[in-house]
Formats: sequence, structure tokens, C-alpha cells
Amino acid sequence: MTYQAPVKEMMFVMKHLAGLSQVASLPPFAQAGIDAQTAESILNESAKFAEEVVAPLNWKGDQQPSYLKDGHVVTTPGFKEAFDQYVAAGWQGITHAEEFGGQGLPKLISTPCQEMINSANLSFSLCPMLTEGAIEALTVAASEDIKNRFIPNMVSGKWTGTMNLTEPQAGSDLALVRTRAEPVGDGTYKIFGTKIYITYGDHDYTENIIHLVLARTPNGPEGVKGISLFVVPKFLVNDNGQIGQRNDVHCISLEHKLGIKASPTAVLQYGDHGGAIGYLVGEENNGLAYMFIMMNAARFGVGMQGIALADRAYQKAVSYAKERIQSRDLAGSTGPVAIIHHPDVKRMLMTMRAYVEGARSLAYVGIAALDASENTTDEKTRHENHAFYEFLVPIIKGFSTEMSVLVTSLGVQIHGGMGFIEETGAAQHYRDARILPIYEGTTAIQANDLVGRKTLRDGGAVAQAICKQIERTEHELARSDTEAAKVMLEKLSMARHALENVIMHVITNTKSDIKAVFAGSVPYLQICGLTLGGWQMARALLVARQHLNDDPDFYQAKISTAQFYAQHLLTQVPGIASAIIEGGAVANALTAEQF
Amino acid sequence: MTYQAPVKEMMFVMKHLAGLSQVASLPPFAQAGIDAQTAESILNESAKFAEEVVAPLNWKGDQQPSYLKDGHVVTTPGFKEAFDQYVAAGWQGITHAEEFGGQGLPKLISTPCQEMINSANLSFSLCPMLTEGAIEALTVAASEDIKNRFIPNMVSGKWTGTMNLTEPQAGSDLALVRTRAEPVGDGTYKIFGTKIYITYGDHDYTENIIHLVLARTPNGPEGVKGISLFVVPKFLVNDNGQIGQRNDVHCISLEHKLGIKASPTAVLQYGDHGGAIGYLVGEENNGLAYMFIMMNAARFGVGMQGIALADRAYQKAVSYAKERIQSRDLAGSTGPVAIIHHPDVKRMLMTMRAYVEGARSLAYVGIAALDASENTTDEKTRHENHAFYEFLVPIIKGFSTEMSVLVTSLGVQIHGGMGFIEETGAAQHYRDARILPIYEGTTAIQANDLVGRKTLRDGGAVAQAICKQIERTEHELARSDTEAAKVMLEKLSMARHALENVIMHVITNTKSDIKAVFAGSVPYLQICGLTLGGWQMARALLVARQHLNDDPDFYQAKISTAQFYAQHLLTQVPGIASAIIEGGAVANALTAEQF
Repeated sequence: MTYQAPVKEMMFVMKHLAGLSQVASLPPFAQAGIDAQTAESILNESAKFAEEVVAPLNWKGDQQPSYLKDGHVVTTPGFKEAFDQYVAAGWQGITHAEEFGGQGLPKLISTPCQEMINSANLSFSLCPMLTEGAIEALTVAASEDIKNRFIPNMVSGKWTGTMNLTEPQAGSDLALVRTRAEPVGDGTYKIFGTKIYITYGDHDYTENIIHLVLARTPNGPEGVKGISLFVVPKFLVNDNGQIGQRNDVHCISLEHKLGIKASPTAVLQYGDHGGAIGYLVGEENNGLAYMFIMMNAARFGVGMQGIALADRAYQKAVSYAKERIQSRDLAGSTGPVAIIHHPDVKRMLMTMRAYVEGARSLAYVGIAALDASENTTDEKTRHENHAFYEFLVPIIKGFSTEMSVLVTSLGVQIHGGMGFIEETGAAQHYRDARILPIYEGTTAIQANDLVGRKTLRDGGAVAQAICKQIERTEHELARSDTEAAKVMLEKLSMARHALENVIMHVITNTKSDIKAVFAGSVPYLQICGLTLGGWQMARALLVARQHLNDDPDFYQAKISTAQFYAQHLLTQVPGIASAIIEGGAVANALTAEQF
Repeated sequence: MTYQAPVKEMMFVMKHLAGLSQVASLPPFAQAGIDAQTAESILNESAKFAEEVVAPLNWKGDQQPSYLKDGHVVTTPGFKEAFDQYVAAGWQGITHAEEFGGQGLPKLISTPCQEMINSANLSFSLCPMLTEGAIEALTVAASEDIKNRFIPNMVSGKWTGTMNLTEPQAGSDLALVRTRAEPVGDGTYKIFGTKIYITYGDHDYTENIIHLVLARTPNGPEGVKGISLFVVPKFLVNDNGQIGQRNDVHCISLEHKLGIKASPTAVLQYGDHGGAIGYLVGEENNGLAYMFIMMNAARFGVGMQGIALADRAYQKAVSYAKERIQSRDLAGSTGPVAIIHHPDVKRMLMTMRAYVEGARSLAYVGIAALDASENTTDEKTRHENHAFYEFLVPIIKGFSTEMSVLVTSLGVQIHGGMGFIEETGAAQHYRDARILPIYEGTTAIQANDLVGRKTLRDGGAVAQAICKQIERTEHELARSDTEAAKVMLEKLSMARHALENVIMHVITNTKSDIKAVFAGSVPYLQICGLTLGGWQMARALLVARQHLNDDPDFYQAKISTAQFYAQHLLTQVPGIASAIIEGGAVANALTAEQF
């Protein structure tokens, strides 16, 4: 088997760290009778599908990428059939409202399922992920007519969705978007322009594709305040819900990429034959706000991709390390042993494992907060959980994807020379991972969000509240007398103090030296990820200690992994914090000409 | 221009850090009248060749890899012609003895030339690099007859050389080598076996290829003590020096690799048609020792490849960051600006720059020590310089290559979405870099060497002597009252103390808990690299301060880069040191089954 979904580990995190029972007790889920048993059944079903149907296609997708033929995208053989099965089993709609044909499950349950599909086949999973974001945006912002026309067929998986933001001159900077939307007079618009990097911008899985497109109406304000959001279907949809005429949006080329090669990355040309018909979503000039809804979901989703890919690379490395016989055991052996017995291989595997477990725990805890905020009637609970989730999104995205680059690189390293040979497959994960810190907002964009909207805007209130929560976990650790708990207490406390200093630095110095502070934005995101991941590992350690006798192998491994996280990862935090606090000015010291 | 050799920077390091004038004053070089002027002329010639002839082929090599056709390797169009020019200009032989047709230049002068060719085109440069190693091994270990038969045509570049160590079951563990060498009775041997991962194991550049092959003679001891070294030419060489009959060594396949695709990586089959004729190098069963001569040269060479590739990626990123217009300046601007003005882009560029400058300085200082040890009559000077160089080799190899993976990854990141598109070229550097921490001994193998042969064997004497030298630089820093010197003093001193603690930990605890200590071997190598690179940056800072008025832009940039190194890179050291000292046991805590 090329991939085995870590259902036991996922259930541990859901139950003991992310509060599955509290999520299940939220009104809509309680009414539906959802419990831990439901969750485990769904995860097992999802695991079966990911392992048996989707994972075996991953390597093929790399070898036979999607390509453009006569203006149509031809995807990797087998992918359409797998997508059909995905749709038939109802996976696309598991979290969506029942009124649109969804199953209304908590996101805490759909997230591990997403993780599995991502681990199994990143290129495949992008199509549902983008559709997910499009459904989110339409659900929140579109008129009833648009919702009814498009959402049910997207929830069912009959049609897919895309996000059209980027243009050649407008990447991270959406103020530079030039695509035009001209009102026709009948309520519709004609769209003209070129969009690039459109994931699954064209494909042959489904009969229709629903593009969400950022464009400018005439006379709108300049910059991001003049951007509106439009729905532009590949085929128009008649009032009776049937597919109508072909719309004027065409895929004119596909990118030749480093990785995720089965996923077609399209250049879409709008309006070369008279104008593509588009429908305004919500109000004019408010497009960026709607797109942010979609982006938040997508950013969390990309964070999960990082975790998923890192786990896949980890599993592959473990399997190789157990098989490959090379050199004697340092402590003595009669002959050569499996390389997993060599300390540096173990250190690399533990590093991979600790990153994956820490990042996964943080992500699941985050998504549980979103469930809570979306399904509670208590305003305070809603607000607190929403603020917590919003703070976490750039961290989950930025930290988990950066670590996936590192972890997939370690995966190659453990394979030695074999890792550099494409047929081994370790290199594919390394190539695939490299897009993750870039798309849906680079790590710098996430870090800008973390510093600007998430830390400065509320004067550090949420950031500091999280540090207080970490402190409470430290108090719990202090009540334990195990070696692992003591080590964790020391390192977590050290990291949390360093993080608090950085938060204070950000709040205090942005006005006086904004460039020095923002030179530390990505490192700030990094220590947030390290510290908050460590916090979750500390919580896991405490739970594992309590349950140790139930399953000694599993819980002892959890305790050791937490301790490893403390001693090898949390120890990075103070050094990075000092670089942020002291090294902001020097990072900006050279003029452009001096480079 | 796709690559511009940093001749000014190289000359700075050679003159002010690596002691070019001392090297030039060593007897053989002084006799030849070599001076800084000579060095600069050679570097300028080399730069012209690398920039104009070799660099333009780099992308083509990635797109049109070498391939096997009817048992022969066909290389990328243009590469043979470039190699012919390389040979015609005499570059292969610049450091070799004049008796074999070389130019007898110091390695301190050839090293920057090597760096340039590596930066220009890693795949191309591998052929000369392997030939270099083969010449070294033959020069030291072979009989006069073998030397005279093979070396002159290798020094001239008429023939190339290879290293044949790896077999499918024997990668890092050469004890498992199975290739057999059966004595024929006339002094020659017949070689039988399969060797894999043979760089330039076959190609169409030259009329002959000289393979150095590890194999076992009958009745030799088991393990590495029974390995002998043989010369096995592709075509036999007659006594008159002319090419004779085809030898029984054949390329049976080429690997499909993640990077360095123009460089053919061959599976070589020896003896399927009666036995390949081989000549013993030196004495039987002493092959590993001879191979180590070759490996030391090759390891240093691979370290230089890391530096070279990182510099190439840095140059590309700088150029893109100056061109790409996106978003306003955080400090205010009337419109969008080049992204080099954004603090996180600058931080990434400074990180790349600081790593490259630190690693280059350390490597040049190292190779100057080799020049000194090889060209002095004073035994103490010879010994000290040799021990210093030997200590540095695993660090230069391991640290520079690991950093090249990081730096080329930052190079992709700075390009944003464009970085993931193959045509941009940033991804090629990222792919190419990934082999560097693997071949010629993985980072773990380097770290084993650093801990075992270089630290434990002499009880830490050389390691501690280097720390004393660093302390002397700290005293010099203390005499300066500039901000940058103060910062550097604080961080360098902190890093050096942490390193000393780790050295003491290694010496003290290896006997009692070898696995815990070796779990810290790669991190130990890493902090050696960070600290020793920082030491060189500190020395550079002091020199730059003295010369500031001669060239303010250059020297101020050097001071700022050194300060950045101190605040952003040296600050990593204490955290890693604590992971080594405290986290060795936990790294080994899980059994194989628990993974």
C-alpha cells in the first residue's frame, strides 16, 4: 500500500485535542445524532477511498500530466473515473447545508477526510478543494437565484469551481487587476481579460465549470476597492437548470510545472469572442471581501495539503528506512541493519513525525473553533472562536506548508541516492510541496495578514490571549512529575516567553519602523507555528500520560514525540525571536543597488 | 547574462581571508611568480568562459538530458563543444604538476574557477570534477607506469575519469561491495560486477574514460579491509599510449533523475563478456584509503557546488526582485514598486547572500590550508594546515550543500508563482541542489566523519584549537566600537561557547551513549558550519571596516551582510546546541515498530 490513512492518530487529535464531543454537541450536529462513532465510520470510509482509489493514481499523474489538445484539457488517465467515484460517494458535499444536497457534517470531520485525499494525491484533491472555496463564497455572498442555479450541482460534484484572481501583472498585488466587466443592461456583465494560474481552469471531469472571477466595472474606484466578483460558467445554465450555450471563456495554455503535474494550471482568456457572460456576486466593488471568504477556506485547505503531503513523505521514508539494509548498528550488531536503527535516520524521521503531528493538531483545533463559531447561538462563544480561527489561518497555511518543504526534503534525504531517482517517488513529494508556500498567498502574504489584520488591528489581544492559554497548559505540565512533562514545560515556557516578547515588539515598533517589523513577519509566523504546535503536543503529552496503560505503544510514542518536539523544535524559537527583535534593521540595510 | 561570476567578491575573500599572498609565497608558487595579479587575470578568463560558453547551456541540459542509444550515451547538444573549449583552454590541468602537463597553480586559485563553472552549469562541471578526483588518487597511489599511462591525458582533458564505488546493495556502506577482481597472472586483473550511480560513467565528450573501481580480490578479508582499487579504462591503452581494444565495461542504463539531467548517471556492467581488464592501484586491500584521497577532493568539490548553485540562485532571485513590480512600499510610495523593496523579500535575499558569503569564505580558507600543507617544508605548518583542512572538509561538504537546498528553495519562493513554472529556471536550481547533500557521502556520512575521525580521534584537539582561533577574532572585534562589530562579537561569542559545549558533550558522552551522541552528529556539523562561517564573516567585517573609504558601497554591504549573518544565522546555534546536548536520547526513543 502506498498510503495508509492515520485514522487512529486523527481520532486521537479530534477527540482529545480538538474537542470532538463538544463539536458534536453543537445544535445542528447534536440534532443529526453525530458522535465519535459517526466520525470514525466516516474516516474509515474515506481512508478506504483515498488508499484504494486515489493514492494509486498519484505517480501516474506525475508521469502523464494533463495536457491541452484542440483547446480542451485532457487529464491523466484514470483521474476522471476516480472523480466520478468521489462524486458518487457524496464526498464533495459532506460539510454543506442539506438544503443544497449536502450532509451537514462538522468541518472537524471533513478535515481529516480532506487530509487523506490530499495525502493520497495532491493533484487530484485540488479540484474538490477549489470547488469547496467557490461554494463557500457563493453561499455567503450570492443572491438566492445564483445560489440555486449553481450551488446544488457544485455540492453534488456534478460541476466544479475555480478561483480567478491572478493576472500576469497582478499576483500578490490584486490592486493591479485589469480584467473588465461591462454591464450589458439586463443585469448581466460581459467579462474581458486574461487570468493565469487557474487551477483546474479547464478539465474533462465534469460537464460544466463555474469560474469565480475578479474584475473591474467601469467607473469603479482604483485599487482593490474597485474589484467586483462574478460567476462565469464555462457553459451558461438555463433557467430550467439545463446546460446552455458555451460561454466565451477559453483555456489558451497550460503551465509546465515543477510538481502537481496532473492538476491543470490554466491560462483563461475571457471575452475574445464578444465577451464572456458573468453574473455579479453580491455588490459591486465588494469582490475582494467575498474572495477572502473563499481564500480563508482555501488557505486552511492548503495548510492541510502541507500536513498531508508531509505525512505521505513521512510514511514513505519510514517504510524505506525499515527495508534498506546498510551498515552496522552503532551499538553493535553482527551484520548490517535496517537504516532506521541509525541515529541520524531516526532523528530525521522523528523530525518529520513531530512536525506532522504538531501541525495536524493545530489545524484540527483550528477547524473545530470554526465549527463552534458557525454553529453556536452564543455571541461570545462565536466571537472568541472566530477570532481564534482567524488568527490561526495564516499560521496553519504558512507554517504547515513551509514545514512540508522541509519534511519532503528530509524524505528525499532518507532515501539517499534512491531519493534522487524519480521512479522512487520521494522526489515527486519534494516537487509537489514547493507550490504550497506560494499559492493561495505566499508565506509573506500570510505573514502580512498575521501581523497586520490579526495582531496589530486588535492590539495583540488575540495573540496574547493564546499565550495565556499556553500558560494554562504549562500549569498543567507543572503538576506532572514525568521527565517528558518537565522537559516540555521548560521548552514550552521558554518559547512562549519569546513569542510574547515578539508580539510586544510588533505592537510597539510598527509605527516607528514598519519595515524593520515586517522583515520579521515570516519569522514571527514561524515561531507562532512552532510554539502553538508545541502547545498542542504538550496537551497531547498530558492526555497520553493519562491513557498510557490503555495502549502503551501508541501513547508512549506520543509522549516521546512530544518530548522530541520540545527539545528539537521548540528550542528554535528563542533564536528566531532574537533575529526578529534585533535584526529587523539590518535586513533592510542594503539598497537595491548594493545587491 | 544568466550568470555573472562574482570576481570582486572572490578576490576579496582570497586576499583578505584566505591569505592569497601567503599562498603565493609558498616555494613552488613563488618560483613561478604567481601573485594577486596572476590570480585576478585567471579569474577573469575563467569568468568569461563560464559566463559565455558554459552558462548558456544550463537550461538546455535540463530540457534535453543525456540519453542512452544503442549502448552509447548521447549528451546534450552543445556540451561536447563546450568541453572541447574547456580542454583547449587548459582548465582541467590548472592545479596539476607541470610534469604531467599541468600549470601548477595553487588550489586557492583553481577553486574560484571551479566555483564559476559549477555556478554556470552543474551538470557540465561534474565531468571535470570527477576527473580531478581520479587524477588526485592516481597521483598519490598509482605506480609510475600507471601514472604515465593515464595521468597526462587526464590532466590535458583528452580523457576523463570516474569514481566507481556504489553498488545496489552498497551505498553508504562500502563493506558490502561485491564487485570481484580476479588476478590473471600477468599483473592485471579481470573485473566482474555492477556499479551504479556512476557520474559521467559513459559519454561522448572524449575518446576514452578512465574508471577507478573498488573491487574485491579473492581471499581478501571481509568488509572494507578487503577492498582494492583498480583502474579500468573504457578502451585499453597500448604501451605506445595509443587507444587499443574496447574493454569489457558497458553502460547498460542511465538514471531518470530529479536534477542535473545533462550529467549522465550510469549503471556500468563489468565483465559480462569475459572480464574487464583492470590494473591495481597501489596495494591490494588498501583501496578504501586511496579512494578517500579522491573522495576528499570530491567532497570539497561538492561543497563548492553547493556554494556555486546557491550563488546562481541568489543572482537570479536578485535580478527578478529588481524587475518584478508588485504592491506599494510599506514606508509609502505613489504606486507599486519592485519587490526588492519589500522587507520579507530583502530578508530572503539577505539570508541567501549571507549563507553564500559565509560558506564561500570558509571553503576558500580551507583550500588555502591545503595549499599550505602540500607546499611547505615545515612539518609543523604542514601538520597544522592539514589537520585544519581535514576538519573542514565534512563541514564544507555538509553545510554548504544543505544550505544550497535552503537557498535554492528561497530562490523559488522569491519568484512566487513564476518560481513553480519550469521555464523560469528557478526550479531547476532547486531540483539540481537536492543531490548535493547526498552524493559523495550524505550529510550523515560527513557528520560521522566529523564526529568520529575529526573530533573523537584527537580528543577534540583540532576542534578546540579552532574555537581558540575564533576567540582571537572576538578579541579583535572587542577593539572595534562600531555597532556591527559589537553585534558580531556578542553573537559569535555566544555561538562559539555553544559549540564548545557540544564538542565537550561529544568527547565526554560517546563511550557511554554512542547513539545519543550520533543523533546529534548532523546538528553538530550544522553548528560547526554556522559558527565557522560566522567567524569568517567576522573577519570580513573587520577588514571591511579598515577599507571602508576605498569602496564604501562594497565594504558597507559586506559589513551589513556580516551583521545580518550574526543576527539571523549565528542566533540559530544555541538552540541547535541544546537539542544536541539534551535531545539525543529522545531521538532514539521509538522502536522501529513504533514508527
